[in-house]
Amino acid sequence: MAGNTFGELFKVTTFGESHGKAIGVVIDGCPANMGIDLDAIQHELDRRKPGQSAITTQRKESDTFQVLSGVFEGKTLGSPMAFIINNEDQKPEDYAHLQTAYRPSHADYTYDVKYGIRDHRGGGRASARETAARVIAGAVAKQLLNLYGVHICAYVSAVGKLKLEKDYKQLDLSTTDDNIVRCPDAATADKMIELIQDTRAKGDTIGGTVTCVIKGTPVGLGEPVFDKLHADLAKAMLSINAVHGFEYGSGFEGTTKYGSENNDIFTKEDGKITTLSNHSGGIQGGISNGMDIYFNVGFKPVATIMQTQDTVDAEGNATEIKGKGRHDPCVVPRAVPIVEAMAALVLADHLLRSRVAKL
Amino acid sequence: MAGNTFGELFKVTTFGESHGKAIGVVIDGCPANMGIDLDAIQHELDRRKPGQSAITTQRKESDTFQVLSGVFEGKTLGSPMAFIINNEDQKPEDYAHLQTAYRPSHADYTYDVKYGIRDHRGGGRASARETAARVIAGAVAKQLLNLYGVHICAYVSAVGKLKLEKDYKQLDLSTTDDNIVRCPDAATADKMIELIQDTRAKGDTIGGTVTCVIKGTPVGLGEPVFDKLHADLAKAMLSINAVHGFEYGSGFEGTTKYGSENNDIFTKEDGKITTLSNHSGGIQGGISNGMDIYFNVGFKPVATIMQTQDTVDAEGNATEIKGKGRHDPCVVPRAVPIVEAMAALVLADHLLRSRVAKL
Amino acid sequence: MAGNTFGELFKVTTFGESHGKAIGVVIDGCPANMGIDLDAIQHELDRRKPGQSAITTQRKESDTFQVLSGVFEGKTLGSPMAFIINNEDQKPEDYAHLQTAYRPSHADYTYDVKYGIRDHRGGGRASARETAARVIAGAVAKQLLNLYGVHICAYVSAVGKLKLEKDYKQLDLSTTDDNIVRCPDAATADKMIELIQDTRAKGDTIGGTVTCVIKGTPVGLGEPVFDKLHADLAKAMLSINAVHGFEYGSGFEGTTKYGSENNDIFTKEDGKITTLSNHSGGIQGGISNGMDIYFNVGFKPVATIMQTQDTVDAEGNATEIKGKGRHDPCVVPRAVPIVEAMAALVLADHLLRSRVAKL
Amino acid sequence: MAGNTFGELFKVTTFGESHGKAIGVVIDGCPANMGIDLDAIQHELDRRKPGQSAITTQRKESDTFQVLSGVFEGKTLGSPMAFIINNEDQKPEDYAHLQTAYRPSHADYTYDVKYGIRDHRGGGRASARETAARVIAGAVAKQLLNLYGVHICAYVSAVGKLKLEKDYKQLDLSTTDDNIVRCPDAATADKMIELIQDTRAKGDTIGGTVTCVIKGTPVGLGEPVFDKLHADLAKAMLSINAVHGFEYGSGFEGTTKYGSENNDIFTKEDGKITTLSNHSGGIQGGISNGMDIYFNVGFKPVATIMQTQDTVDAEGNATEIKGKGRHDPCVVPRAVPIVEAMAALVLADHLLRSRVAKL
Repeated sequence: MAGNTFGELFKVTTFGESHGKAIGVVIDGCPANMGIDLDAIQHELDRRKPGQSAITTQRKESDTFQVLSGVFEGKTLGSPMAFIINNEDQKPEDYAHLQTAYRPSHADYTYDVKYGIRDHRGGGRASARETAARVIAGAVAKQLLNLYGVHICAYVSAVGKLKLEKDYKQLDLSTTDDNIVRCPDAATADKMIELIQDTRAKGDTIGGTVTCVIKGTPVGLGEPVFDKLHADLAKAMLSINAVHGFEYGSGFEGTTKYGSENNDIFTKEDGKITTLSNHSGGIQGGISNGMDIYFNVGFKPVATIMQTQDTVDAEGNATEIKGKGRHDPCVVPRAVPIVEAMAALVLADHLLRSRVAKL
Repeated sequence: MAGNTFGELFKVTTFGESHGKAIGVVIDGCPANMGIDLDAIQHELDRRKPGQSAITTQRKESDTFQVLSGVFEGKTLGSPMAFIINNEDQKPEDYAHLQTAYRPSHADYTYDVKYGIRDHRGGGRASARETAARVIAGAVAKQLLNLYGVHICAYVSAVGKLKLEKDYKQLDLSTTDDNIVRCPDAATADKMIELIQDTRAKGDTIGGTVTCVIKGTPVGLGEPVFDKLHADLAKAMLSINAVHGFEYGSGFEGTTKYGSENNDIFTKEDGKITTLSNHSGGIQGGISNGMDIYFNVGFKPVATIMQTQDTVDAEGNATEIKGKGRHDPCVVPRAVPIVEAMAALVLADHLLRSRVAKL
Repeated sequence: MAGNTFGELFKVTTFGESHGKAIGVVIDGCPANMGIDLDAIQHELDRRKPGQSAITTQRKESDTFQVLSGVFEGKTLGSPMAFIINNEDQKPEDYAHLQTAYRPSHADYTYDVKYGIRDHRGGGRASARETAARVIAGAVAKQLLNLYGVHICAYVSAVGKLKLEKDYKQLDLSTTDDNIVRCPDAATADKMIELIQDTRAKGDTIGGTVTCVIKGTPVGLGEPVFDKLHADLAKAMLSINAVHGFEYGSGFEGTTKYGSENNDIFTKEDGKITTLSNHSGGIQGGISNGMDIYFNVGFKPVATIMQTQDTVDAEGNATEIKGKGRHDPCVVPRAVPIVEAMAALVLADHLLRSRVAKL
Repeated sequence: MAGNTFGELFKVTTFGESHGKAIGVVIDGCPANMGIDLDAIQHELDRRKPGQSAITTQRKESDTFQVLSGVFEGKTLGSPMAFIINNEDQKPEDYAHLQTAYRPSHADYTYDVKYGIRDHRGGGRASARETAARVIAGAVAKQLLNLYGVHICAYVSAVGKLKLEKDYKQLDLSTTDDNIVRCPDAATADKMIELIQDTRAKGDTIGGTVTCVIKGTPVGLGEPVFDKLHADLAKAMLSINAVHGFEYGSGFEGTTKYGSENNDIFTKEDGKITTLSNHSGGIQGGISNGMDIYFNVGFKPVATIMQTQDTVDAEGNATEIKGKGRHDPCVVPRAVPIVEAMAALVLADHLLRSRVAKL
């Protein structure tokens, strides 16, 4: 109710402020007797962690997690799984100036009004650090999904105005992590990296887009009318810090088309019902149809820039602020595992929900 | 859990198949002692109803509702409010051919697999008729919101490639309903109407975009981290039939910008903290900041076209299908009140939720 | 959240005031493709309905229900099932005196304070008439449970101080409905009927107890730690009007025992693990163990008596009140189907929930 | 959904196995800006902890908790509060024999069947150790309730057949913790202690009853029809390990009465509407009426006894088992703070829920 839980049957609750003692996550509803690969969880955290490359923040956080409960001799018990990451490498002095000035396009002001109190150190609960907890939960969800043949791959498809002009079907998504920007097209990746480095050199930040593809989804996931599969994906994506847009299948481009262009014709292939095109993005009527699910997630530029900006303090007095500390010039490379994690949470939840749809 | 309920505190459950006995909605959680204007509810239903103009489906449904409970002497009791609309003007013979052929880009196939049974008459539960129930609930939510000074206005901002090139601040939104396409710019409206009529003449359909603006939202609505105000708006919008995209504030355009361009500088105006620009779309960190909330909702073209299309039946045998019955050539004019209704449900829910955020 | 919904996966929402237009229920989450026996639903309603015998209220309500949605050609669609019963035989004049005087031990005063408004006619939402909606939902749940071999039988085990001195295993529960008090022991039933008639003759009312037995529950229903099967049964029973107590298995009597007396020894019988005794009432650690589930539900005497009682009005001024209208002298005979219905809702919900506990 | 969360607005999720790394709790929904007294939390834990007196288990656990999040400079942030207690003093060798034999009247068998896997060390998730996490959450809830004048006191009212023959109004509840059995009547307490010691000497265990009194509840808490205040209290209590019965107000005794005896007559006292008697137990129609709330909670004898008992192993083979380790001969003295904690969770949740009932 207070907004820190996601999912209905595969239920995930995150907790923790960026500069508190620890952040963590409780997963309630993961089926019992499932093997848990802890290394695979750490691998996902490493894809998200700060300091991983020349184009991310240089903050160093090892992001090593501990399992507190719910796993016994390498398997899930069916009880809540709790994970924590202790916070470290905190430089609260980087944030002292934030106690009295609202950072533009940050959550400082709205948190202050909503709660009447705020942990100003590094964004507190509003910090993207919270997404590390999501990545843990998503890594567990992926392990559940893999058992059912569902695989999720995201990649960077745009940085600023620089757009990857290929469709996911023209790309080898296994190469996404081969470069530090996570774009599975080497030539475009190089240009993106250069653009991000130029941006950082100017003390600025830049937006971008992540595309996500889900293969192997069984037919039947999604709960009309409100919990349509794509509606839950939209919410999941918009719940990630800095996301301002979501489109699936033919997306906004499809809204400019005629029905005769956009419809997906059913056919039979290898004894299976399938569609000739896939403008529906693998979802019809809110329910997966077995085709690839794909969608775009748009991230605004990071709000913390290394330039002086005008602002006000809590009393409304004019002041100015300049980004200190170590921030990402562009969030999308590190957002790739977060997008995958949130997609995994949605799919795992709907996989479980689909078990009760019919006799 | 089965997907027919929306909201946490202002909780709305819809029911009903398009060709069953009735559709309806139960609202649980509307505060007691609130005056209810039944005419205002009917007015919203009339904005959505079929047959309202030359560019909508010619199906005639009076869409007259009944209140079954929760209202006493013109006021809410605090108990569940149930509303129903009896179904009428049903021509099930229009749908007999659907028993054996899957309509392209419709929910026929996915419902069949998910549930193992389907009411093939007019889409059953997957029919957009279900949104009439949402409009009733949204009309009640609007009455609650009005008491707090929150006002919601949506309008058509694109039909196919024809885009309204003005920003909402350049428009007089009180004129939206002055034309049948619901575009608050007379010249553009005329062109849109013409485009829709041409499309219909070809037996085709076309997509479009609805823009929604919410004014007067108090600071503090939205529940981080998962139930961010825009995340719930995204889900609400994507849960509407045919919606494929959502963006708020600077949206996808903003993802191509630098932070120094996109940030909203805080200032003080009339003794109140406000921002100079509003790329944030009235929401920061998932919480409303008191500025206008605005977003775009993209609708794909209606799947039912009056042309012959190839398809398969439940066994996968090739067959063909041609749209019968009376369908909309473009859904956006009738979608305007639906977008407003869903926005109202989100805002009303978060208004109530905000009451418990602090001591 | 506002309290009108029960269950997590088999989710039931009731609506309606006793003297409004209709009462009803929406069931969301019943699996698709299940045959629905409408006569069986009506049969359960008839067991609950007023005017059924000499020892119940003489109010006549036919309690005929309509199905509005969710059922197609005799089967569930997987969509929400809505049912309504129109209200009739209303004598609001019986209630005019209640506008200004609070009935002792009724909900008039607390509703007034909580909601600031009240439908004074017949108790409004607080009327036991609401339980008719529960009985409909329970009848559907029973049909689901029967497919899994689960059967629920309740009966009257005490009226006032007159207690049925036999254990359920000594009774033939198929004879429960053979007499109007619903006690499966003819001699005790006769005495109970006499006691109720004497009570009514004095213008008084009397309390009693209903015992419920559930046979055939599969091992594994119940979700520790909070949603233990018996915890949800307790809530279900206490949510019925006038219930003041719940005990299962060895109950309060068991709290006076030693562990060596109360423990149930495991053994193997016909190749199945079972227990020699069943003080656990078929539930261990909150999870069904396959043995009979049994529990007692205590009902206080009906608050409306045909005697003059002192009370106050909304301003606290002293006044007096005398029961008018037609009320039950003892609620337990009509409570039997309600107890069964609520038990069925709990079991059906947990049956569905158990589907996701393990891989 | 998987049963580890309690409450709707004041939402509490516990996690942890008795012999895993830690147990803990996340509280989501506690209002921001509330002062938190950590010592008061530790005090409640100390009332529950093992080894506290001669009549409890001699296991030594310091039960020292850590706050991981949600508290900043002594106040709540409005974000989730996470607390953990690391497990220590584990003697898993005490439990090795449990791997192959089902303890009578324990959850071993049902967990095995439900989840297909079980942490056999000390009961794992089914251990009463989980209630330490509830006590932490309850201590926070009490601090919220105290701000509104609500106070909760529980005490031991029966051990086996030895019953405290005084009503709570005849007792000084501030003396409850003056003796180790937590009975606020010194003479009875002595007898209870003796009975428990005798029981332990025989290697047996014994049941008992805890009575709970809540003073100062504002009028209006409770959400009809399903979430009646007493229904949620019943569920809360039955969710505690070993509880088999719940009754409130006049309880089962009241079911033997006439309406004319049991009704509570309204009157006005000191300008406030009140009732002459309080058989309703402070709740009418599921909503608090401002009078004292009181109820009894019945605990069966602890299942682990120090005697040899017959049982079976997972394959159903006959074997025997004898309690090892250090267990409570009677659970009620340590159950007093647990009952209070669960009552506090219910009241805090309904306090928040009541904020949205009316305009």
